[in-house]
Amino acid sequence: MNQAALWERYKRSLIVCDQAGVTVDTSRIDFEDGFAARMAPLVSRATTAMAALEAGAIANPDEKRMVGHYWLRAPALAPDPAVKRAIEDAVAAITSFAARVHGGEVAPERGGTFTDVVVVGIGGSALGPQLAASALGTTADRAAVHFVDNTDPDGIDRVFARLGARIATTLTVVMSKSGGTKETRNGMLEAKAAYERAGLAFGKHTVAVTGEGSDLDRYAKEQGFLARFPMWDWVGGRTSELSAVGLVPAALQGIDVRAFLEGAATMDVATRETDATKNPALALALAWHHETGGVGKKDMVILPYKDRLELTARYLQQLVMESLGKEHDLDGKVVNQGIAVYGNKGSTDQHAYVQQLRDGVPNFYATFIEVLRDRKGPELEVEPGVTSGDFLQGFLLGTRRALYEKGRASITITLDEVSPRSLGALIALYERAVGFYASFVNINAYHQPGVEAGKKAAADVLSIAAAARAALTATPRTADEIAAGLGRADDAETIFKVLSHLAANGRVAQTGGRAPGSARFATG
Amino acid sequence: MNQAALWERYKRSLIVCDQAGVTVDTSRIDFEDGFAARMAPLVSRATTAMAALEAGAIANPDEKRMVGHYWLRAPALAPDPAVKRAIEDAVAAITSFAARVHGGEVAPERGGTFTDVVVVGIGGSALGPQLAASALGTTADRAAVHFVDNTDPDGIDRVFARLGARIATTLTVVMSKSGGTKETRNGMLEAKAAYERAGLAFGKHTVAVTGEGSDLDRYAKEQGFLARFPMWDWVGGRTSELSAVGLVPAALQGIDVRAFLEGAATMDVATRETDATKNPALALALAWHHETGGVGKKDMVILPYKDRLELTARYLQQLVMESLGKEHDLDGKVVNQGIAVYGNKGSTDQHAYVQQLRDGVPNFYATFIEVLRDRKGPELEVEPGVTSGDFLQGFLLGTRRALYEKGRASITITLDEVSPRSLGALIALYERAVGFYASFVNINAYHQPGVEAGKKAAADVLSIAAAARAALTATPRTADEIAAGLGRADDAETIFKVLSHLAANGRVAQTGGRAPGSARFATG
Repeated sequence: MNQAALWERYKRSLIVCDQAGVTVDTSRIDFEDGFAARMAPLVSRATTAMAALEAGAIANPDEKRMVGHYWLRAPALAPDPAVKRAIEDAVAAITSFAARVHGGEVAPERGGTFTDVVVVGIGGSALGPQLAASALGTTADRAAVHFVDNTDPDGIDRVFARLGARIATTLTVVMSKSGGTKETRNGMLEAKAAYERAGLAFGKHTVAVTGEGSDLDRYAKEQGFLARFPMWDWVGGRTSELSAVGLVPAALQGIDVRAFLEGAATMDVATRETDATKNPALALALAWHHETGGVGKKDMVILPYKDRLELTARYLQQLVMESLGKEHDLDGKVVNQGIAVYGNKGSTDQHAYVQQLRDGVPNFYATFIEVLRDRKGPELEVEPGVTSGDFLQGFLLGTRRALYEKGRASITITLDEVSPRSLGALIALYERAVGFYASFVNINAYHQPGVEAGKKAAADVLSIAAAARAALTATPRTADEIAAGLGRADDAETIFKVLSHLAANGRVAQTGGRAPGSARFATG
Repeated sequence: MNQAALWERYKRSLIVCDQAGVTVDTSRIDFEDGFAARMAPLVSRATTAMAALEAGAIANPDEKRMVGHYWLRAPALAPDPAVKRAIEDAVAAITSFAARVHGGEVAPERGGTFTDVVVVGIGGSALGPQLAASALGTTADRAAVHFVDNTDPDGIDRVFARLGARIATTLTVVMSKSGGTKETRNGMLEAKAAYERAGLAFGKHTVAVTGEGSDLDRYAKEQGFLARFPMWDWVGGRTSELSAVGLVPAALQGIDVRAFLEGAATMDVATRETDATKNPALALALAWHHETGGVGKKDMVILPYKDRLELTARYLQQLVMESLGKEHDLDGKVVNQGIAVYGNKGSTDQHAYVQQLRDGVPNFYATFIEVLRDRKGPELEVEPGVTSGDFLQGFLLGTRRALYEKGRASITITLDEVSPRSLGALIALYERAVGFYASFVNINAYHQPGVEAGKKAAADVLSIAAAARAALTATPRTADEIAAGLGRADDAETIFKVLSHLAANGRVAQTGGRAPGSARFATG
């Protein structure tokens, strides 16, 4: 298609969300004639299901739960006045708590004001807060935010080593709906130990974001945490950024959380539109369906041309892949759905893998995220009349054209600027698009049955490790011999792996080299 | 396959690189009988081509260049004594310069010692240094390393805002082989302006890593840079981490660069083995070929279970995708090759997208990277006898099993620890595997013809922007009207996009809203 025709298509198809300062451009998707008509019944089903979801239907049938993340930014929509009040109370409690922290009324044990925040959480309790902290952080922040988002001992040590003596003025936020997530439990215990090594009481520096009555909730009471904020079973982890999960760290950092909520609310209004030609989330979901064939045959490459938005793809990996990556559809049929998501930022990624995008395997479609506002401070001309930001836009438009010329489709989302408002809108846009797409392909976007098997297998590994370690003697034996002695020949490989790990950490003795057939293990 | 049979396969197939402290396990790839025999001629071709490459053949035929990154860690292999000497001299110059910086002999303009390093570079001049800085950094580092890896004005402002007054003790390293990379040129000019705003002479705080006689080399001389280190045309950007590109920032940070080189050299020896059952890089390349069908039909998901290795997939995106993502094979046939790479870290990513990996579209194979050594400091038991690190390993092994049960293949690479030596070995392992795989599929791994089109299109955008801006008058006009006035109707969309960007930054005036048909632009 030539440039003039593309311009006409661009003018015709661009969806402008004036209040959110966002536009969505699908002019580089070659929708064939008849596509819209073919999808119309699915669009109608999706918007109907979405309206029911917002009205409080059991939209997550497997877990028999309502799906209420849209109520978070429009509490009046909640199907129950108690839910409405709980949302409003939580926002008020969060902003008030943050104000008291900033004002020094809630102060560290040894006085002063809190300078740093450590968020202990994983998955939905880390990815959204990380995106917001990176996208919206400035040197004027009220607190610097750090993350313990894994059960890697060295990774945790690194966070507390960086804090050093500032641990005395660090507020820790532990986030887990059930309190049963082992990575978060471990991170919390490691954080507690770090405070105690510094002679500080953990509870006096910590708040919890958790479900009422959860293990973490009980622990927080026991330890005298500074505050507890709610997580509700009608908000899933991957759509929790506009709940206390996102708002507590953001408010402590000094981000305007009401603007964040308003941005999301504004986009929610735009994405309730039932006319697909006017709804930016339907536009995205239709483009995804067109490119993936509704079966995930192409990857979603996310290219924000803005350093602040570098974690967008990482956030969307969870939102998109955990929502859409499903074995069964709603009728129980095996479908192995999903869309793989990756990307970092442009133009940096142009120097990493645009070579493959343009010339290589055509198994993707790109989403460019453009930000019009370049910087807060004064412009610098790097050539007469030309700024670094002009180059940044030039690379975006140039790459978009170079890909399209080679038949590689793309979507362009343009934001006026990166602000709490626009980030809220961007998150809301993708939350809705994922919900619509899930309807198109007839799956439950709101459960995650596939993660249990890995957790169960991990528990088995820990139990085998305990048995193997308990069976060690002073006589070095191979993994085969130890497994046979335990009557667990099938576990020999796991025994070898766990004993090698314990040996590398000085907890058991290993001789005979690294080879699995000849390495021998004994009490250390 | 049952656990006992997998254990036998594991014992039989594990490749142990004792000196590098690395093992490669392909037991969770279901190689069918006959695969090895079918691949044997390709293996033979690949090892022969690799030997010729190491001996100085023109292994990059399009650019008529030798490919010499293996010489960097074994200078005696260089085909020419002058090359050997240049490599040795560069390493000596780098370590000596770093020692003089650390010792205060090379000092900031206003005295003191350098506290921070800003690397200005993109692609191969950023991704390796970022991986090394993150993987090997400690609070005992001699300098903190920051990156300007884009032409995003706000992103650059953010780096210098974080430095604040420490800019006076910041050493900037500008890296560009030709000096013609616009992002790096712009980053350098922005850095220069930041120093000048602080009343500091740029040249007195800056070194260059560049090709001799390049634009940057000339500029460095003019500006009186503190030092210049070489880039050679026989080292490609994506295999430059063991050249001055990687060694200069690493040495300044305080990393043992000789151990880094030795680790790579050790792995290079292991990957010169011509017996595929003993060569860890051939094992990887064969596994990749098995899973992708030699046509990129599956993505490579990289899951290091170690926070320090979080940037591994990002580094490999360039190494793998820019090397393998090619339109033509060496015979000129259109092949659209490549393997898409993504991933961050385990177990964090389990909470993001393992749902899709286990249940969703089976378009990937995983690579687990395991690190045996947990932490430097004392262990903490989070349950009796169990550490955070035991959980981390449990999640790795559990996820590996849960994926395999569902027919999702994986590779496991195990490192004794994360150290300069093991990181050097890991990089060398992948460099070689990529070279072998490229031979298997008969492509040139060492050029990147596909990136030019985007750069050219970007230059066109900047030229259209200049014309459109020059054509503005005090009378507001639409993009269509401005384009018609210029006789460039085909450029109307670009004109609209660039003027919208200029307007958002207060450089032209915009009225009539955001819609492309009605927005009007005038002189600001």
